[in-house]
Amino acid sequence: MPKDRPVLIDPELVEKWIFELGAIGAHSGTGVWRTVYSPEWVEAAATFEKWAREAGLDVRRDAVGNIWARLDGRDGGSAVVSGSHIDTQRPGGRYDGAAGAIAALVAIKALKEQFGKPRRPLEALALCEEEGSRFPGAGFWGSRAIVGRIAPGDPDRVTGYDGETIAEAMREVGLDPGRAPEARRDDIAAFIELHIEQGPVLEAAGLPVAIVDAITGIRHVEVTLAGEQNHAGAFPMDLRRDPMAGFAEIASTLIDHAHRLGRPAVTTIGRVDVDPNGPAVIPRSVTFTIDARHPDPEARKALYAVHDAVLREVSERRRLPLDMRVHMSHDPCLSDPHLLDVMRSAAAERSIPHLVMPSGAGHDSQQMAAVAPVAMIFVRSKDGRSHTPEEFSSIADLAKGTELLAESLYKLAY
Amino acid sequence: MPKDRPVLIDPELVEKWIFELGAIGAHSGTGVWRTVYSPEWVEAAATFEKWAREAGLDVRRDAVGNIWARLDGRDGGSAVVSGSHIDTQRPGGRYDGAAGAIAALVAIKALKEQFGKPRRPLEALALCEEEGSRFPGAGFWGSRAIVGRIAPGDPDRVTGYDGETIAEAMREVGLDPGRAPEARRDDIAAFIELHIEQGPVLEAAGLPVAIVDAITGIRHVEVTLAGEQNHAGAFPMDLRRDPMAGFAEIASTLIDHAHRLGRPAVTTIGRVDVDPNGPAVIPRSVTFTIDARHPDPEARKALYAVHDAVLREVSERRRLPLDMRVHMSHDPCLSDPHLLDVMRSAAAERSIPHLVMPSGAGHDSQQMAAVAPVAMIFVRSKDGRSHTPEEFSSIADLAKGTELLAESLYKLAY
Repeated sequence: MPKDRPVLIDPELVEKWIFELGAIGAHSGTGVWRTVYSPEWVEAAATFEKWAREAGLDVRRDAVGNIWARLDGRDGGSAVVSGSHIDTQRPGGRYDGAAGAIAALVAIKALKEQFGKPRRPLEALALCEEEGSRFPGAGFWGSRAIVGRIAPGDPDRVTGYDGETIAEAMREVGLDPGRAPEARRDDIAAFIELHIEQGPVLEAAGLPVAIVDAITGIRHVEVTLAGEQNHAGAFPMDLRRDPMAGFAEIASTLIDHAHRLGRPAVTTIGRVDVDPNGPAVIPRSVTFTIDARHPDPEARKALYAVHDAVLREVSERRRLPLDMRVHMSHDPCLSDPHLLDVMRSAAAERSIPHLVMPSGAGHDSQQMAAVAPVAMIFVRSKDGRSHTPEEFSSIADLAKGTELLAESLYKLAY
Repeated sequence: MPKDRPVLIDPELVEKWIFELGAIGAHSGTGVWRTVYSPEWVEAAATFEKWAREAGLDVRRDAVGNIWARLDGRDGGSAVVSGSHIDTQRPGGRYDGAAGAIAALVAIKALKEQFGKPRRPLEALALCEEEGSRFPGAGFWGSRAIVGRIAPGDPDRVTGYDGETIAEAMREVGLDPGRAPEARRDDIAAFIELHIEQGPVLEAAGLPVAIVDAITGIRHVEVTLAGEQNHAGAFPMDLRRDPMAGFAEIASTLIDHAHRLGRPAVTTIGRVDVDPNGPAVIPRSVTFTIDARHPDPEARKALYAVHDAVLREVSERRRLPLDMRVHMSHDPCLSDPHLLDVMRSAAAERSIPHLVMPSGAGHDSQQMAAVAPVAMIFVRSKDGRSHTPEEFSSIADLAKGTELLAESLYKLAY
């Protein structure tokens, strides 16, 4: 239902909640260390619940510890949901995840106070263990539970950095791991996640927010090039089979290729292990990773085809046997066109200057896409930093993002 | 004095001594583990002395444990010396070092038996701790002592992999470390070292031996390229400062450059350390070594000038601050022209097919050059292997090298 006045967002409430949540697990000055099911997470979850109850919302915790704060709708039916995760890196900052959970609560509280009961139910969601920072095999744990991607035996199989299983950690905070499959939901009409950008694109463009039209597709491969270990002095160049030479050529070629493709293609070689790694020894082997991402399904395929062809050609020409393993491959997650339309008109109506851009990082939304149309809002990050105490987004930008979120939720639920 | 018949070398004696010495410290099948001043070294040194005494040579041990086996000359004066080291890698093979000590003894024994007393003194030399395999700071220990490059405090400063000082190890085998400077000699007329090639050049050329006209010049540098650590997904290529991109370009360029220069230039990037070395993180820094060698003094300078210019240019263009440290730089050691002439005519007279080539590895000869004209003889290595139990040179090739050595010693001493 069209309305005659804007949703008003209180920047002071955004600021108050960001700082209060950031104080729970505060670490290294402006950092936060709040891993899932830890005492800090318990306190943060209770705080989120308290805020939601004080806002007059119905609060419940699901079987894995996600918190749902609901404003019922007159017509019932599937819910329009917004939120993000409240666990952090070790340490992360105050904004990654928390900003989206808080924005959802601020927006729904404002909608309730300013426009009363919606047509459809509205829910604010605080997800758990997006980062995989306590249980490396449990990234997107909360959202995976919601979309039914936790199998009955998983909680006993997933172990943390300190050796405990996630089942043990769940029991310690009063959750029954056997009931994890009950967290599944199939009554979500739309999911919108606000998140900090974690990159420098909005800052470089001088804009506070972005509408995210896709979460990029990603592939991680690990490649080993084998050569012949020999004496660095006694082997002439023409008689070598030097895997470092092959690696350097491949790394140069693939990185240059992504540069030439331009945004949004990215290719990163972040990890290199040389055997035996001695200054006067031609290596026996060089093992390296290739992280390559593109949000367009066809362009992504073409990118990987180039990578595979370059690897094969260099390996054959230089006689360096190649071993290549794909450790991870996720298709792009495209935002729902209708949600994008809704968000674009909301931005236009409120004259919110914005970019439309893909996300180069992974997010809970790509899990949620299995059960609902999804889209995201990005808020400008200072220097593109995240996963560090130095990450920062201004309250003005966060309030602008929350405004865009609230207007979009209004259009979807009222 | 010209002679009317060739020096005859007994391949069976070469074989017998190679295998007997190789049995002392035998390790991993065909390997040898015989570090300086160890019980194995003590036994090998005593064995070398016994052989020398049985050959009728005067034997003495100097202040650091080098063994000198002398055949006096009629005219006295400076000695013509040949030998190499009897310590090994951990484990090395039977040939690296041992071949040269044995060849010297076989040659001088044959000369004595077949031609009697020489004009000048002839000495066979078994050097100690060339490899630095027990005391990493003591490479070329025996030859450094002979040329006066051991300072009075050095034995107490040099520590082994197990924490002991070389002074302690010397005392355990009855040597007084305080007397190390007494090992110095200034009465050496020429030094010729026979050694296995440790590279594939002779094998590729189908030749048994080489006359070595230079020991290559070498420089080891360690370079750190610093960039900006960031998220592999969220940072567009055009906003990155990626030290891996800079490293790959530099490594490709320098390795390709050495290929284009061709023999004897070599450039090796053997060690790479990436920080933080994660698959989804643009690195903060990449640290790597460059080992670059050329036996020609001017060409070596030109090689390093290219390296320095490429490093500077890539660092500036890519905005990756550069830290470069030179860890080692040795000028080439040129063989003495007169010794080369002598060896070339010896090879011609005996129709010994050979290459003239530089050594890409370091050898005791480059130390000995400080007090005497030097030259070397290389013997073909199977697959260019060394520093491994698999290293192998045939007895036929070793006998051919010993023949060339004996004929050269005759020309110099008789």
